[in-house]
Amino acid sequence: MEKEYLLANMTWQEVEKRLKECKIALVPIGSTEQHGPALPLSTDHYIATQFTHRAAEMIWDEQKVVVTPTITFGFSPHHMEFKGTITLSELTLSSMIADICHSLDQHGFEKIVLVNGHGGNETAISNALHDMHGNIDAKVYHANWYNMVGEKIREIVTPPLYHACDMETSVAWYLGQRVLEDKRVDEPGKSLVPGFISPDMSATGPRASVSYNFKEITNSGVVGYSTQATKEKGKQIVDTVLENLVRFIREIAKI
Amino acid sequence: MEKEYLLANMTWQEVEKRLKECKIALVPIGSTEQHGPALPLSTDHYIATQFTHRAAEMIWDEQKVVVTPTITFGFSPHHMEFKGTITLSELTLSSMIADICHSLDQHGFEKIVLVNGHGGNETAISNALHDMHGNIDAKVYHANWYNMVGEKIREIVTPPLYHACDMETSVAWYLGQRVLEDKRVDEPGKSLVPGFISPDMSATGPRASVSYNFKEITNSGVVGYSTQATKEKGKQIVDTVLENLVRFIREIAKI
Amino acid sequence: MEKEYLLANMTWQEVEKRLKECKIALVPIGSTEQHGPALPLSTDHYIATQFTHRAAEMIWDEQKVVVTPTITFGFSPHHMEFKGTITLSELTLSSMIADICHSLDQHGFEKIVLVNGHGGNETAISNALHDMHGNIDAKVYHANWYNMVGEKIREIVTPPLYHACDMETSVAWYLGQRVLEDKRVDEPGKSLVPGFISPDMSATGPRASVSYNFKEITNSGVVGYSTQATKEKGKQIVDTVLENLVRFIREIAKI
Amino acid sequence: MEKEYLLANMTWQEVEKRLKECKIALVPIGSTEQHGPALPLSTDHYIATQFTHRAAEMIWDEQKVVVTPTITFGFSPHHMEFKGTITLSELTLSSMIADICHSLDQHGFEKIVLVNGHGGNETAISNALHDMHGNIDAKVYHANWYNMVGEKIREIVTPPLYHACDMETSVAWYLGQRVLEDKRVDEPGKSLVPGFISPDMSATGPRASVSYNFKEITNSGVVGYSTQATKEKGKQIVDTVLENLVRFIREIAKI
Amino acid sequence: MEKEYLLANMTWQEVEKRLKECKIALVPIGSTEQHGPALPLSTDHYIATQFTHRAAEMIWDEQKVVVTPTITFGFSPHHMEFKGTITLSELTLSSMIADICHSLDQHGFEKIVLVNGHGGNETAISNALHDMHGNIDAKVYHANWYNMVGEKIREIVTPPLYHACDMETSVAWYLGQRVLEDKRVDEPGKSLVPGFISPDMSATGPRASVSYNFKEITNSGVVGYSTQATKEKGKQIVDTVLENLVRFIREIAKI
Amino acid sequence: MEKEYLLANMTWQEVEKRLKECKIALVPIGSTEQHGPALPLSTDHYIATQFTHRAAEMIWDEQKVVVTPTITFGFSPHHMEFKGTITLSELTLSSMIADICHSLDQHGFEKIVLVNGHGGNETAISNALHDMHGNIDAKVYHANWYNMVGEKIREIVTPPLYHACDMETSVAWYLGQRVLEDKRVDEPGKSLVPGFISPDMSATGPRASVSYNFKEITNSGVVGYSTQATKEKGKQIVDTVLENLVRFIREIAKI
Repeated sequence: MEKEYLLANMTWQEVEKRLKECKIALVPIGSTEQHGPALPLSTDHYIATQFTHRAAEMIWDEQKVVVTPTITFGFSPHHMEFKGTITLSELTLSSMIADICHSLDQHGFEKIVLVNGHGGNETAISNALHDMHGNIDAKVYHANWYNMVGEKIREIVTPPLYHACDMETSVAWYLGQRVLEDKRVDEPGKSLVPGFISPDMSATGPRASVSYNFKEITNSGVVGYSTQATKEKGKQIVDTVLENLVRFIREIAKI
Repeated sequence: MEKEYLLANMTWQEVEKRLKECKIALVPIGSTEQHGPALPLSTDHYIATQFTHRAAEMIWDEQKVVVTPTITFGFSPHHMEFKGTITLSELTLSSMIADICHSLDQHGFEKIVLVNGHGGNETAISNALHDMHGNIDAKVYHANWYNMVGEKIREIVTPPLYHACDMETSVAWYLGQRVLEDKRVDEPGKSLVPGFISPDMSATGPRASVSYNFKEITNSGVVGYSTQATKEKGKQIVDTVLENLVRFIREIAKI
Repeated sequence: MEKEYLLANMTWQEVEKRLKECKIALVPIGSTEQHGPALPLSTDHYIATQFTHRAAEMIWDEQKVVVTPTITFGFSPHHMEFKGTITLSELTLSSMIADICHSLDQHGFEKIVLVNGHGGNETAISNALHDMHGNIDAKVYHANWYNMVGEKIREIVTPPLYHACDMETSVAWYLGQRVLEDKRVDEPGKSLVPGFISPDMSATGPRASVSYNFKEITNSGVVGYSTQATKEKGKQIVDTVLENLVRFIREIAKI
Repeated sequence: MEKEYLLANMTWQEVEKRLKECKIALVPIGSTEQHGPALPLSTDHYIATQFTHRAAEMIWDEQKVVVTPTITFGFSPHHMEFKGTITLSELTLSSMIADICHSLDQHGFEKIVLVNGHGGNETAISNALHDMHGNIDAKVYHANWYNMVGEKIREIVTPPLYHACDMETSVAWYLGQRVLEDKRVDEPGKSLVPGFISPDMSATGPRASVSYNFKEITNSGVVGYSTQATKEKGKQIVDTVLENLVRFIREIAKI
Repeated sequence: MEKEYLLANMTWQEVEKRLKECKIALVPIGSTEQHGPALPLSTDHYIATQFTHRAAEMIWDEQKVVVTPTITFGFSPHHMEFKGTITLSELTLSSMIADICHSLDQHGFEKIVLVNGHGGNETAISNALHDMHGNIDAKVYHANWYNMVGEKIREIVTPPLYHACDMETSVAWYLGQRVLEDKRVDEPGKSLVPGFISPDMSATGPRASVSYNFKEITNSGVVGYSTQATKEKGKQIVDTVLENLVRFIREIAKI
Repeated sequence: MEKEYLLANMTWQEVEKRLKECKIALVPIGSTEQHGPALPLSTDHYIATQFTHRAAEMIWDEQKVVVTPTITFGFSPHHMEFKGTITLSELTLSSMIADICHSLDQHGFEKIVLVNGHGGNETAISNALHDMHGNIDAKVYHANWYNMVGEKIREIVTPPLYHACDMETSVAWYLGQRVLEDKRVDEPGKSLVPGFISPDMSATGPRASVSYNFKEITNSGVVGYSTQATKEKGKQIVDTVLENLVRFIREIAKI
C-alpha cells in the first residue's frame, strides 16, 4: 500500500494496529473557491493536501502519523460572485472540524493537527478549537501553512501576499497544481480603508478589518502579482514550510 | 485537462463558460467508516466517486455535467466502535449538503444530483432536501447507487445485502478499490427483533427499525457474505447502476 | 376506568403502580394534513391512534402497556397548498418525539414503540432515534403501520399506494373514520421523473427522490384509487397490521 | 358532523369553504403532567380542550371559529419526579406553537387564540409570540383560562390557587374529568423564600421567583385544598371563564 | 476602594478572598430603549443598577455580597420604532444571563439574584432560569424591582403603571437619572382588546395578551402620566423597594 | 449634558436629531476577566471604554459620533480558573454584537466601529461580521486598540506583549484604572510548543495555535513584565492609539 499514512486507505484492523505506534493525526483543510484566471478552484485544498502528505512522508521513518481525507470545502462567501466557488457556512465548517476531531479522539489519537490552506477558514477553526476545549482529551493544534513560512522567506516574493498572489501561485505550481500559465494576471487589490484595511498579509502598521466581497477589491479574483510566480520560488517556500511543519510535528510528539 | 467534468479542476472563468452549456451538477456523497477486514474505510466515498465520475464520462458527449468534490465524511456513529471510523453529526452533514447545493444554485446550476453511497446518510440527505424546499431554485435529486440496481440484479448476489457484503465488495472490487482478498469474511448479522428488524436491504415482510451499534450485530464489521464477491458480479452490478444513473440524468435533463 | 392503558387518564400514583408490571410505552404519531375530498385532515393521527389503542387492547391480558397521547401534528409542508394542513418543522417534530421518549425513559419505561401513520414523519423520527442513541437507556422502536402490512396484503388493493389511496381509505373507513363516501376520487398522481420518481410505495425498480409539493402531482390531494376502497378490504388490512403489531410488541417484550 | 368547529374533522375543501366565513382559529394548549392523587395527568389539556370546545359552541351562531387539535404536551420539567409526567423542552414547545400558527396564517386565518391551561407553558408561549412578531400576518392572542376568572370569582375558592387545588379540581370535575374523589388531599405547599416566593397565584405583596422541582414544595403533587373542591364551585368558575372567553372572541372579531 | 461590592473592580485574588465570606452575587439587568421625551434610553439599566448598588450598600455590614457589571441591553423589539433603542434577541439575552450565572456558579457563588428593571426581559430571564435548572448548583433568583413595590405603594401613583409612567419617572428621578423635566408628557396608552389587553400593570379583571409594537399604543413612547412624577413619590417607592430587596437578600442568605 | 456622544444618555428624540448629523456609531467591547494581582477584572472593558470615549471627544468638533454602552462581558473561558472571571459563550457574544449592530443599522447608522479591548473576543467578533455580511446595510468595522499601536510603539515596552503585561498595565494605568502598584509581578508565560506556540503578540517566525487554559502558562494570571509598566509609557501608547483611532474614524467618515 502506497501512502500508508492515509487513514481512509486502511481497514479498521489496520488502524487499530497503527494506533499502537502512532497517536498523531493530521487533517488537511482547504476550500473550493476561485483563485483567479490561472489557478483552479481546488487550489487551497490541493496545497493543504500536498503539504500534509509530504510532511507525513518526510517524518514517516522517525514518527508514524495518519492523515485523514482532506476537508475540501471551506468558508468562502466572499468569493461567491466568482463562478464555481462553493461555501459552507461558518457553523457547518466548525462543526465538521469538531466532529472529525471528536471521532479521532474517541479512537485514541492524542494529538491532532489541522493543516489549513485557506485564510477564510481561520475563524471557523478557532470556533472548533474553542468548542472542543474541555470536551476532548486530544490536543488539537491549528497550523496554517502560510504561517509556517516565517518572515524571511516572504522577502523573496512580491507583495501583497493575499490571494492567488506570487507566493500562492509559486507554491501551487511547484506542488504540481494545474496552472494556466498564460492566464496569470497582476492586480494589487483595493484598500478598503487606506492605511488600515488593505489586502496584504505582510502589511505592518495599524490595522482594522471589515467584511467584504472580493469583487469590491479585485476584478480578476487575484490580489497580488501572479506573473511573478515561478516554480523555483515555490520550491524555496515549500521547503521552508515542510521543514517547519515537520519540526512542529516532532515537537508535539514530545509533549 | 483530463476529467474535465471536475468542478474543482476548473478556474472560475472555465466554470462560467461551462455554465452556458450545462446546468447539471453531480455531488458524490460517501463516508469514512469501517468496512470489515477486507475493505478500507474509504469504501463508501470511493464507490460514490467512481459511479459519479464514470456516469459523467458516459454521458459527456450527449450532455455536459460538472462533478463537485466528493463529500468524504458521512453519518456513521453506529460504526464508531470500529477504529478509524469518522462521523459527522446528522446536522453537520445535512447542513454541509445544503450549503453546497445553495452555492451551486447561486451560480446557476438548475439540477443537482446527490449520488450517495452510504445508507447511513439517507436521513441527513432527506433533512437537507426538506430544508432547501422552497428556498432554492434548483431541483435537488437524491440517488443512492444501491437503489439504482433494481430488483433483478440483486438475484445474482448472496443475501443479506447490508454492509461490506457480497454486493458491496463485488462493486468496490470491480471499481478498483483496494481489497484485502484473503481477509474477506462471512457474517450474516444478528436480527435485533426477529421477523421485524433484520440487517438485510432485500428483506421483505413486516418491518420496523431501531437505532443500534454495529457491534451488536457483527464482530467483524461485515454483515453479508463477502467471500462470495467477485469482480464479475461487480461488473454486472456496476453496469446496471451506471446505465440507470445515466438514464436518470438524461431524464432530468429534459425537465 | 375504560382504556386503562391510556397514560393520560391515570394519576401519577397509578402510573407508578403500573410501572411495576409494565415497561413498554406506545406513542402514536400522525399528522393533521389534507387527505383529499373524502377524508378529514385527522386521518393519519386517527389511524395511528386506532391501531395503537387496538393493539394495546389485544395484547392487554398477556402484556400490559401504556399508550401516551397521540402526536397529532406531523411534518407536512408538501401539503400546505391544501387548506387546513398544519405542519411542524422537521426539527420541532423530532425534538418533540425525543422529549417524549426521554420523559418516558426517565420514569423507567424500557421499551418505547413509536407507531407512525404518516410517511412524511419518517425522517424526523429517524432524526429523533439518532439523537437519542447513546443518550437514553430505553430502546426506542419505530413502526409504521403501512410497513406492518407485508407484501402479500398489498395485492388486494389497487396501486398506487400513496395518499388517501385505496389502502389508506379502506383502513380509515374500517377503523371508524368519517368518510365522505361520494366525494371519493381517483387520481394516479404524476411521476416527477418517469421510471425513477413515482408516487407509489409499492413500486419496484430503480428509484430516486426529490422534494416536491403535492399540488405538482395531484389536484384533488389524492394519489391513488379511493373509489376502490371498501370496509372489507380495510378489515383485512387492519387485521394483518394488528396481528403484526401485537407480534412485534410480544417480541420486544422478550428482549 | 358534530362539533363542526373541529378543523381536524374537516376535509381540506371544507376548510376552504369555512375560511370564507371565518378567520378565527382557536388552539387549546395543555400538558401531560401529574395532578396529585385525585386527578389524571391529562388534567391541563382536558380543561383547555373543554373550555375551547365549549366556547366555540357558545359563540357558533354569531361567529364561526375553528378549533385545532389540542397541544397535549407542555413544559413540565418541575413535575418529572412524579411518574407519568411528560415534558417538552421550552424550545420544542414554543417552536410547535409557532409552527402551528404559521400554518394557520398561511391558510388565511387572521386571528389565532392560544387557549392555555398550564402555567408552566407561559414562557414558551411568550417566546412563540415574540418569535412570530413581525413574521406573521395573523394576530396571535394568548389567553390562560385561569386569567379569565377575574378577581371576584377567586373569592369562592380556598387559597392557595396553584396546582390540583380547590379551583382546578372544581373546574376539572365540573367539566367531566375523571376525579378520584376519595383520593383528594390538602397540601398548602412550601414557601421557598417566605414573604417573596410562595406557591399561590392569588398572593399579593412583594414577590420574586426561582426555578424549583415540585417535590421541594409538595409530597402529594397537590398545592392547595382539593378536598374543598365541588362541582358547584366548578360550574360558577367555568361559567365565568366561558363568558369572558366568548366575550374576548367577540372583541377580537371586531378588530 | 469605594463600592467594594463591585466584582469588576476587584482583582482575582480579592474575589477569591471575598468568596470566603460571601456566596451571594447580584446581577442588575436593564435595557437600552426609548423612555419617551423626558427620560434617556438608559433608564431601565440605570434604575436596576441603582437599586442593586444601594441594596448592596445597605446590607453590607450584615451581609457581604458582590455585584457584577450591569446587563445594559435587554429585549426591546417592540420599541425599535423609536430611535436609539437597541434590542437583543430573546435567545441572546437568555444565553447571556445563563452564561453569567454559570460563571458565578463555577467560582463558588451559591445564590445569585437577577435584579431586573425591564418588563420585556421577563420571558428571557424565565428561559434562563429554566435552562439552568438541574444544570447549576447555585440557586438563581429573579426579582423585578417593580414587583418589590407591593400593592399599597402603588396607590400613591397615577395609573396606568406601564412605561415612563408616573411610577417609573418618579423612581428614576429620585435615583439621580437625567430627567428632561419640561418634556414630560401624559399618554394613557391604547387598549388593544378593550377589557382584556390594556397597558397597565395594575389592571385587574380578566386579561389576555398579544405581541405588539409600542407605536400602536403610544405616539410619544410614554404610557402613563409622567407629569405627575415627583422626586418625593420616587423616594417613597425607592425606600419600599430597597427595604424589600434587602429583606429578600437577608432571607435567601439564611437558606 | 456631559459626554453628549453617549447614546444611552439621550432620549429617543435626541437620537433622532443626532442622526441628522451623524451616521457613525462606536461600540466598545471588553471582558470581565482576571488580569493578575495588580489589575481588576474590569481592565479590558475599562480600556475599551476609555479609548472609545476619548476618541469620540477628540473627533467631536469635526465629526459627530455616538457611543453605545460598553459590552462588558467577553469570551474568557481560558481564564475561568481565576476567580471572578465571567465568560460568555462564543455564540452568545457574537449574537450580542450582531443584535446591537442590527439595531443601530435599523435606526440609520451607516458605519459602526467595534472597538475591542480583548484578544479573546476576536473570533466572536469575526463570526458576527460574517453573519451580518449581506444582511445589514451598515458597514461594520472591527478595530482592536492593540492593533492600532503600530510596530514602532511596541519597541518601548518589554515583551512579551500578552496579558496584564507591560503594555497593558501601562495603558490601563494612564487611563485611570485602579492599579495595585505593589502587587505587580513579572511572569514571562510558558511556551506550549517551543518555537511555534508562545504567548507573545509581538513574536515573529513560524507559528501555530492551540486552545489552552491560562493556568497552564501562568500562575499569577500575568504573562509579561508588569513591573516595567509606567504611566509615561502608557501615555505614549494611548496617544498613538487615539491618534490612529481618530484617523480611522476620519477615513471611514469619507467612504
